[in-house]
Amino acid sequence: MTDISRRCADMQASPIRKLVPLANAAKARGTSVYHLNIGQPDIPTPPGYWNALKDSLPNVLAYGPSQGLPVLREAISSYYSRSGITIDTDEIIITTGGSEAVYFAFMTTCDHGDEVICFEPFYTNYNGFATMAGVKLVPVTSRCENGFHLPEALEIESRITDRTRAILICSPNNPTGTVLSPEELQTLSSIVQKHNLYLLSDEVYRDFVFDGGTHLSTLQLPEIEDRVIVMDSISKRFSSCGARLGNMISRNKNIMDAALKLGQARLCPPTLAQYGAARIYHNLDANYYSDVMTTYQNRRDVLIEELSGVDGVFFLKPEGAFYATIQLPVKDADRFASWMLTDFQLEGETTMVAPAAGFYATPGLGLDQIRIAFVLSEEKMRKALEILKEGLKVYRD
Amino acid sequence: MTDISRRCADMQASPIRKLVPLANAAKARGTSVYHLNIGQPDIPTPPGYWNALKDSLPNVLAYGPSQGLPVLREAISSYYSRSGITIDTDEIIITTGGSEAVYFAFMTTCDHGDEVICFEPFYTNYNGFATMAGVKLVPVTSRCENGFHLPEALEIESRITDRTRAILICSPNNPTGTVLSPEELQTLSSIVQKHNLYLLSDEVYRDFVFDGGTHLSTLQLPEIEDRVIVMDSISKRFSSCGARLGNMISRNKNIMDAALKLGQARLCPPTLAQYGAARIYHNLDANYYSDVMTTYQNRRDVLIEELSGVDGVFFLKPEGAFYATIQLPVKDADRFASWMLTDFQLEGETTMVAPAAGFYATPGLGLDQIRIAFVLSEEKMRKALEILKEGLKVYRD
Repeated sequence: MTDISRRCADMQASPIRKLVPLANAAKARGTSVYHLNIGQPDIPTPPGYWNALKDSLPNVLAYGPSQGLPVLREAISSYYSRSGITIDTDEIIITTGGSEAVYFAFMTTCDHGDEVICFEPFYTNYNGFATMAGVKLVPVTSRCENGFHLPEALEIESRITDRTRAILICSPNNPTGTVLSPEELQTLSSIVQKHNLYLLSDEVYRDFVFDGGTHLSTLQLPEIEDRVIVMDSISKRFSSCGARLGNMISRNKNIMDAALKLGQARLCPPTLAQYGAARIYHNLDANYYSDVMTTYQNRRDVLIEELSGVDGVFFLKPEGAFYATIQLPVKDADRFASWMLTDFQLEGETTMVAPAAGFYATPGLGLDQIRIAFVLSEEKMRKALEILKEGLKVYRD
Repeated sequence: MTDISRRCADMQASPIRKLVPLANAAKARGTSVYHLNIGQPDIPTPPGYWNALKDSLPNVLAYGPSQGLPVLREAISSYYSRSGITIDTDEIIITTGGSEAVYFAFMTTCDHGDEVICFEPFYTNYNGFATMAGVKLVPVTSRCENGFHLPEALEIESRITDRTRAILICSPNNPTGTVLSPEELQTLSSIVQKHNLYLLSDEVYRDFVFDGGTHLSTLQLPEIEDRVIVMDSISKRFSSCGARLGNMISRNKNIMDAALKLGQARLCPPTLAQYGAARIYHNLDANYYSDVMTTYQNRRDVLIEELSGVDGVFFLKPEGAFYATIQLPVKDADRFASWMLTDFQLEGETTMVAPAAGFYATPGLGLDQIRIAFVLSEEKMRKALEILKEGLKVYRD
């Protein structure tokens, strides 16, 4: 048999999904599983989506424009204007999920073999797109004891080489829940100017900032407006992961022209879903954004109530998104997470979490950490975390 | 301003879409345009699609499995069994359009810098995916006077180097309408065995074979079953281009495992569209496939009636798909196609075609050729072609 490509052979399998067979086996034994392992929101998709689908059934389900339907690009432009951010529709390209926006950002800024600096732990799927784009992700470690905020500028700059093309950030952060401060963004702005780099900014959780904070977008840094590429998505904003709609935003015209060429190769993003998304933007309940943010904040508070003070458990309060990366009193969180599925249950129920080591690029880091997604109701969160605590009491390395 | 990547700067803009601004300007002047330039079918999408959307609106539009929904993979397996082809659901991965299937085929078989042999003229978007995957497309020329059938085996083999990983074919062909014979597939089978290559086979037009012929799939070549990767799509089969649903099929387990890793990185294909597609497969009118094939065949016949015998116009009868690549009595078909939009009209109407040079990789080839997509009704086809003939009479190089 002929070999497959080395790049696919070397590619990491998803650490978020790799314990799924164990969860399925637990379910087959009759054990219920609370899924805190995956960022799949339980919040209902706003009804505008379904109404638009019912109203806009065409005779022929045709290709749309490669840059996305004007109606959706205009809706996104309006959405940003709510935050005082002026974005022209020409500065927006609709992508097939935020995933494709990440890929386009790598492809438009980097050639094969170029480097992008990112802060570990980071969203694991960046690895997949980096592999596809032939880009080397160069990790700088952020630390749990520091709430996963940025390390010093000098530490970041020490990793810059002549192949470095960009710095990649995600704020509010998956997998840590950290929100970068205006001062941290200023630091990054200085670095990208000094070293002539792009700033790739994953802002898909921008609506979920807790405790009265607001999100400062990298689009609000005028001094680097031609260096910023924002990756956005409706997956989490509107609980519409299955729509596969995201967008890439940049005020750099050359970058947008390049993204459009990539977009033309894959023809267009899904047509009907774009009508659905546009309708959501235009017909939201007045309090939708604050209601959803509050829902996640209350769940975050349950997490803190349940896990604070537990012996050997450490994390700082997540500031946004719906994730926390948590240090556990175990040697190997991967083994612990597996054991919760294979050997533990409490009254017929158990809890599934994501081992955090897969979110680090540096081998050996995060071995005692897990990522929790607070995507279940407060009641279920409480139950799932009680089970987790019971598991920790019983488990022996 | 920081440079964009060289690979994006060098990437070809779509030759199919590049004359669109001229067409828009013609429309703005009040001239109607017959679009024979793009493969957007006018046939209604089967109602099962819309019924499934109405019936399967979930509360949360969630991620689906990375390999696609079981219900759709089973439907595709059943579809192939109609042709006597046994495909296990594990040998199918649902992709975001046939486009992603092409990309996955390049990525799973090739490393950066590897080569794939293809036959020019070829579907221009292969270029885009080759650029993304860092794959070099090595063209072997097929000729109009030969009905764009394959050149001799020796000519093909002469282009094989130590970087060659695969041969890419498309049958029925876009942009030529050519259907490869069983003998031609045997030739390719021998070559890929002899040189240890993969055979990447774009079969998205497999339902449209004219004049009583049937399509022989590369999945029906048992001696190379672990070398074959088929790229398929519902875009043309069910006039569902905007659904963005395709699939990749292979009996090579390593290839499918690699494709799943790529699939996990982009999470999943669009969820709702998959329910729609599955419903179409299960609730088609008994004669759907033959009715659609006959529709295109009749339009092909209009093309032959209208253009055969026109002075200086040459093409052999297209055997399938809904395209013809046609030699015109002009020096520069790009200029002629532009002129039809900027300077010509007949009773307020004109015809848009795609210059064929963009479908060739070798500079200087196909300059006097155009691609016509027969995606309009017979009446409109006849009118559009009459206008084209009038244009040819008036046009001077």
